[in-house]
Amino acid sequence: MKLLEDRILKDGNILGDNILKVDSFLTHQVDFKLMTEIGKVFAKTFESLGITKVVTIEASGIAPALYVAQELDVPMIFAKKHKNITMTEGILTAEVYSFTKQVTSTVSIASKFLSQNDKVLIIDDFLANGQAAKGLIDIINQAGASVEGVGIVIEKSFQDGRSLLENSGVKVTSLARIKNFENGSLNFLEADA
Amino acid sequence: MKLLEDRILKDGNILGDNILKVDSFLTHQVDFKLMTEIGKVFAKTFESLGITKVVTIEASGIAPALYVAQELDVPMIFAKKHKNITMTEGILTAEVYSFTKQVTSTVSIASKFLSQNDKVLIIDDFLANGQAAKGLIDIINQAGASVEGVGIVIEKSFQDGRSLLENSGVKVTSLARIKNFENGSLNFLEADA
Repeated sequence: MKLLEDRILKDGNILGDNILKVDSFLTHQVDFKLMTEIGKVFAKTFESLGITKVVTIEASGIAPALYVAQELDVPMIFAKKHKNITMTEGILTAEVYSFTKQVTSTVSIASKFLSQNDKVLIIDDFLANGQAAKGLIDIINQAGASVEGVGIVIEKSFQDGRSLLENSGVKVTSLARIKNFENGSLNFLEADA
Repeated sequence: MKLLEDRILKDGNILGDNILKVDSFLTHQVDFKLMTEIGKVFAKTFESLGITKVVTIEASGIAPALYVAQELDVPMIFAKKHKNITMTEGILTAEVYSFTKQVTSTVSIASKFLSQNDKVLIIDDFLANGQAAKGLIDIINQAGASVEGVGIVIEKSFQDGRSLLENSGVKVTSLARIKNFENGSLNFLEADA
């Protein structure tokens, strides 16, 4: 997605060897116009699959997932990373290790929102090691629902998340694929959409 | 907002004496159509104030805040509740105690996203004790920006959050105001919009 790649080059900040900050338009401050375009591209990619639910994980996945859900005209569910006293019964969970935050979280979705008839599209802001998406796939499988695809805004293609997901039989569509970081800049692989 | 009140009565679940779960359309599964309408109502309420930024707090505030930002055609910023290794410099923080989650969090916004020229609208899903909104006001004031108003989707009017905010000089607009819970149901006060 050229609009996204251009925005990453313009407004992204590279920290150290392999951290890309996109906090001015995706992960902290959010540009709804870009989210709208992202929603359209993902919806076009997945529109033939009969998606019934879009699932993401709090918090940075919510904005792109919401606009994908809007374009596909289905509900969006965001998995919770933290326990809440109002979530008491019927919870599906998976353990997810975040390399960025260096903690293991119990990710959860209320079972009442997923059924075996659901065809689920997973949307997330970043794919690196694939642990978050893997946890969501685990939860969706527990519900007996099918995962029809994974849509990623920014993929760190030099990490093994994509192959982890593809090896489990899930199709991955990434709008920007970072091949590597080099001298404070970055190179892209050809994106999937 | 009658559409919202009707939805709360139809799909909300009351737990115990004072907990309302709206996880089927706002806090876990999200109905983008309702969010779109909520965005329109808040935008109409605040459109004359020259709002330059919408600020909320992760995670359940993101969806309504995003649609308000869309209607006002400004960026949305979601404050972070959790430390992240990519947030390193220039952070404005406030301590916020959550009665629901029973923990104190350090809420933060990168200072580069707020300036003294900003006129900020705070949007949040719930107002109960007002601690989250108070923390956001504190952060926005640290940046020298002005808080032009607080927009709340669901207010628990029997708790003291609204008076806390109004006593600090901030105008509060709530789309649904819960007067009390009674025999497993609830009563509304007249909403602000």
